[in-house]
Amino acid sequence: MLPASVKEHFAESVASFRGLKVGVLEVPHRSEAFLEEMADVRALFKDLLAIPSSHEVLMLHGGARRQFAMIPQYFLPPGEGIASYISSGHFSEYAIAEARTFGRVDVPASGAADAYGKLPDVENLQAAAGTRYVHYTSNNTEFGTQFAHAPAPSDGAWLVSDASSDLLTRPVDWVSHDLVYSTTHKNLGTPGLAVVVVRRDLPDPVRPVPQVDDYRVHLATESRHNTPPLATVHVLRLMLEWSVDQGGLEVLAQRSTQRSAALYDLIDRSEGFYRGLAAPGSRSAVNVTFALATPELERRFVVEAEACGMVGLLGYRRVGHLRASLFNPVPQAGVDRLINFMKEFRRDHG
Amino acid sequence: MLPASVKEHFAESVASFRGLKVGVLEVPHRSEAFLEEMADVRALFKDLLAIPSSHEVLMLHGGARRQFAMIPQYFLPPGEGIASYISSGHFSEYAIAEARTFGRVDVPASGAADAYGKLPDVENLQAAAGTRYVHYTSNNTEFGTQFAHAPAPSDGAWLVSDASSDLLTRPVDWVSHDLVYSTTHKNLGTPGLAVVVVRRDLPDPVRPVPQVDDYRVHLATESRHNTPPLATVHVLRLMLEWSVDQGGLEVLAQRSTQRSAALYDLIDRSEGFYRGLAAPGSRSAVNVTFALATPELERRFVVEAEACGMVGLLGYRRVGHLRASLFNPVPQAGVDRLINFMKEFRRDHG
Repeated sequence: MLPASVKEHFAESVASFRGLKVGVLEVPHRSEAFLEEMADVRALFKDLLAIPSSHEVLMLHGGARRQFAMIPQYFLPPGEGIASYISSGHFSEYAIAEARTFGRVDVPASGAADAYGKLPDVENLQAAAGTRYVHYTSNNTEFGTQFAHAPAPSDGAWLVSDASSDLLTRPVDWVSHDLVYSTTHKNLGTPGLAVVVVRRDLPDPVRPVPQVDDYRVHLATESRHNTPPLATVHVLRLMLEWSVDQGGLEVLAQRSTQRSAALYDLIDRSEGFYRGLAAPGSRSAVNVTFALATPELERRFVVEAEACGMVGLLGYRRVGHLRASLFNPVPQAGVDRLINFMKEFRRDHG
Repeated sequence: MLPASVKEHFAESVASFRGLKVGVLEVPHRSEAFLEEMADVRALFKDLLAIPSSHEVLMLHGGARRQFAMIPQYFLPPGEGIASYISSGHFSEYAIAEARTFGRVDVPASGAADAYGKLPDVENLQAAAGTRYVHYTSNNTEFGTQFAHAPAPSDGAWLVSDASSDLLTRPVDWVSHDLVYSTTHKNLGTPGLAVVVVRRDLPDPVRPVPQVDDYRVHLATESRHNTPPLATVHVLRLMLEWSVDQGGLEVLAQRSTQRSAALYDLIDRSEGFYRGLAAPGSRSAVNVTFALATPELERRFVVEAEACGMVGLLGYRRVGHLRASLFNPVPQAGVDRLINFMKEFRRDHG
């Protein structure tokens, strides 16, 4: 869900963009207004996330799934070289499958044996020799797990993070990260784009790649090589401005920690009525996953919650159970209502 | 530009989509409303363009430039096999450059020797032996040329058309075309997607391709493999409904022919004051390109036209001169105004 103010401002921009006669869906992509909007969004993003001058912000078509393919196509050589992927859930597995199309993938750490409820240890990662980059999924929405610390890649290897579900919910350590990407449809607006923050001193691609997949082309053209969907960019702009208005990254991070802590506390004190799905050290501040004693009780929970106006509490379709997502736009009133509902539901059914 | 009614309906959908509590930017991509919208747009598109059951409509991220790469990646084998590309302007050259990343490209017909002002003869095309597909650009916006007839590919080869600037302005012969694609930002709405109409009996890809580039995956998932940008899909829907309201494809095609004929007539009867840039047999019904005697006069034309509220008359940056684009949403009043302006401008400066 998006904040109401973002939707209102966006709807106004459809009739007229920046006071022009044309709306946001129609702005010619070589016009001054278009260039300014793209530059503004990059600047806002850099400010909000404290991105150093060593990195640049790209806005590329196709969401995270395009990055699942574009990264190994560019960085994982055929024949020699390895990409090391941390396996921590379905989306990391999707990324791994795409990477295998292009070269050799090693999985030096995996949560599969723990059914992904517990994150593998990555602080003492032993990546295989020849590793070009280490890829990890910062937050795993479906299991409600989140890495507290980034993996430490071996010397010379890049560190790549899929931060699709927790970018803008906590700071990123730009010294250790070489490429961080996020789809735009969690905390950054609406589907259609990936924001890619990448080191400016990009190497050449390991194989001939088409221009549309060449990070250097997008860097040189300031993401305008492939006519950007300006409406999606504008939603991102409004989300960034909203984030600034909320108090910036530190406030958003605190909020995310406090909200999730309140939910985990309720779960942990429920004497087994609610059962947290993620191991304590692996718990996400963005997606809180939990179960009830029986599938029937879980169904009743969803139905009663919907009757109280709370939707989207069903778990990821391949995991099941229940999930409360605390993406930035969720209002505090919604979190309070959920907590009260969970208390009452336990009282009624416990 | 988009029709005013399309913008109004779209702006309303930002607050509430199909009567839901969520707006078009936020609809969960597994919800019924999302699935229905995707299905509706496919059905509308098939109806409007009389697409037979042998073909399916895909809506894929990334616009035409993604198709420039995705087509050769899927259909042009490494080593053996050839893709035959008709060269008719900058965009066909961009497509050729991307294809060369993946395999051997032959150019059996090119307008380069005529500076692209005249289309090459493609009715008696002799494509090289081993041609897997013939690719052509149906309409060339920058030069104002448009193929009256599709190339006839050799036996077994597919016929692929980039119809980014003239889809929905005239009928497509689905018996001869195997894959037709179009970006969404000319007659189909706003940037972000490509509509790809492709034969259902797709061959397997010629090399391992990632899922996100596998046409079979998109066919099987009804274009939902990579979370579609529903807002862009919804703009497309509104454009299709608007096209139906206008009277459908036949009316739009007639209109396009009549409007361009009126402009070409004015140019041809101007005793050399206006000079058409495209050869008579190659002229486009969508983009009318013309020159004046001097660059000064052309600049004056643009300035005076802008003062009368007519923008976008400058030619493509790599071609120069002048261009009147007659995409479907251009209102008849705008065309009439341009014709009157051109008459007056000649009277004043001729």
